[in-house]
Amino acid sequence: MKLYDSTLAPNPRRTRIFLAEKGVEYEKVEFNIPKGDNLDPDFLKISPRGLLPTLVLDDGTVLDESVAICRYFEETVPEPNLMGTDARSKALIEARQRHMEFDGLQGAADAFRNSYPGFARRGLGGSVGEVPAIPELADRGKASVARFFARLDEYLADHAYCAGDTFSIADITAFCAVDFATTAARIPFPEDKPNLKRWYDEVSARPSSSA
Amino acid sequence: MKLYDSTLAPNPRRTRIFLAEKGVEYEKVEFNIPKGDNLDPDFLKISPRGLLPTLVLDDGTVLDESVAICRYFEETVPEPNLMGTDARSKALIEARQRHMEFDGLQGAADAFRNSYPGFARRGLGGSVGEVPAIPELADRGKASVARFFARLDEYLADHAYCAGDTFSIADITAFCAVDFATTAARIPFPEDKPNLKRWYDEVSARPSSSA
Repeated sequence: MKLYDSTLAPNPRRTRIFLAEKGVEYEKVEFNIPKGDNLDPDFLKISPRGLLPTLVLDDGTVLDESVAICRYFEETVPEPNLMGTDARSKALIEARQRHMEFDGLQGAADAFRNSYPGFARRGLGGSVGEVPAIPELADRGKASVARFFARLDEYLADHAYCAGDTFSIADITAFCAVDFATTAARIPFPEDKPNLKRWYDEVSARPSSSA
Repeated sequence: MKLYDSTLAPNPRRTRIFLAEKGVEYEKVEFNIPKGDNLDPDFLKISPRGLLPTLVLDDGTVLDESVAICRYFEETVPEPNLMGTDARSKALIEARQRHMEFDGLQGAADAFRNSYPGFARRGLGGSVGEVPAIPELADRGKASVARFFARLDEYLADHAYCAGDTFSIADITAFCAVDFATTAARIPFPEDKPNLKRWYDEVSARPSSSA
């Protein structure tokens, strides 16, 4: 199977880390998003929305959403479990994964995409045509990231991981959100948040973090 | 169990329709979001993000995300199946559900929340403090909804439903997105999209649509 990938983008990275945790091997095709590789007509025939990651399974099935790719491998390669073991834990992890995505990753993405000069006419990702960046949305995204850092630090005072006491997909999303916020979106890591720092260092030490 | 609900908001409605399809009964607590019921300190003790829907199970478990609530009931009340039956169909339905959410519902929500006068200082939902509305984001949301209508119409030329040939959670999200866009966000229903119209009429005729 083949993963259409982009090393620096946060959504492909979520998938790469998930697959590394599961020990799944695959072929990678590296795309440069600022150069517009993801908008190439040949790729749009495979993945019409023009977003990464896109995974093509050996049977030709196209999965074009990070969490949907993770779901496929959670079902086919159950260990280590990353999305819950029963109805309650599956629901709680899904809720927390979505908190990390909407509160953290979305804010970081808004902050970056609406301030990076190369995306001045690409305010939304993928094959949506010209969408002007909105500078106020970059500011809103930065404020969202600050709240995300504060809330996650508070949560991690009482929990080992982002969705309770086991490492899960919620940690992968949060980790990619923190890294994207502090690199691409240039928001300083909040050194005054000890629980966030403890968790971040721990997740950084996992071999999957370099995937 | 108790559902903290708001009749006119699209995310609680997704959950209500899903539960109606499953035949699950529950107690409802109706909140008025423009009046700020969801920001009441007593509710924030239950659901700190201040977002609806929030479901409290009989054992006290709090589920505060629409799709996570759906996941819980997909696991505990498997029929009718709404989220896939094997790894491939689960992944494909999850991908399509997310398309409907990010391409459709998010656009409609941006269009409404950044133009409705009552939310001029509440540009993001929930307990995030003052967030100014961004008029340009309302325009971006309207353009996203127009693309969503066009793409969904094209997809529905070849498929009975929003994620293939069976009714699923993707249809519920899309249906709530269309209704929210055409009522709250005041974007006209695209009468020139015959496939979208055929599907919309069919989903509207299901008893769950009035949940």
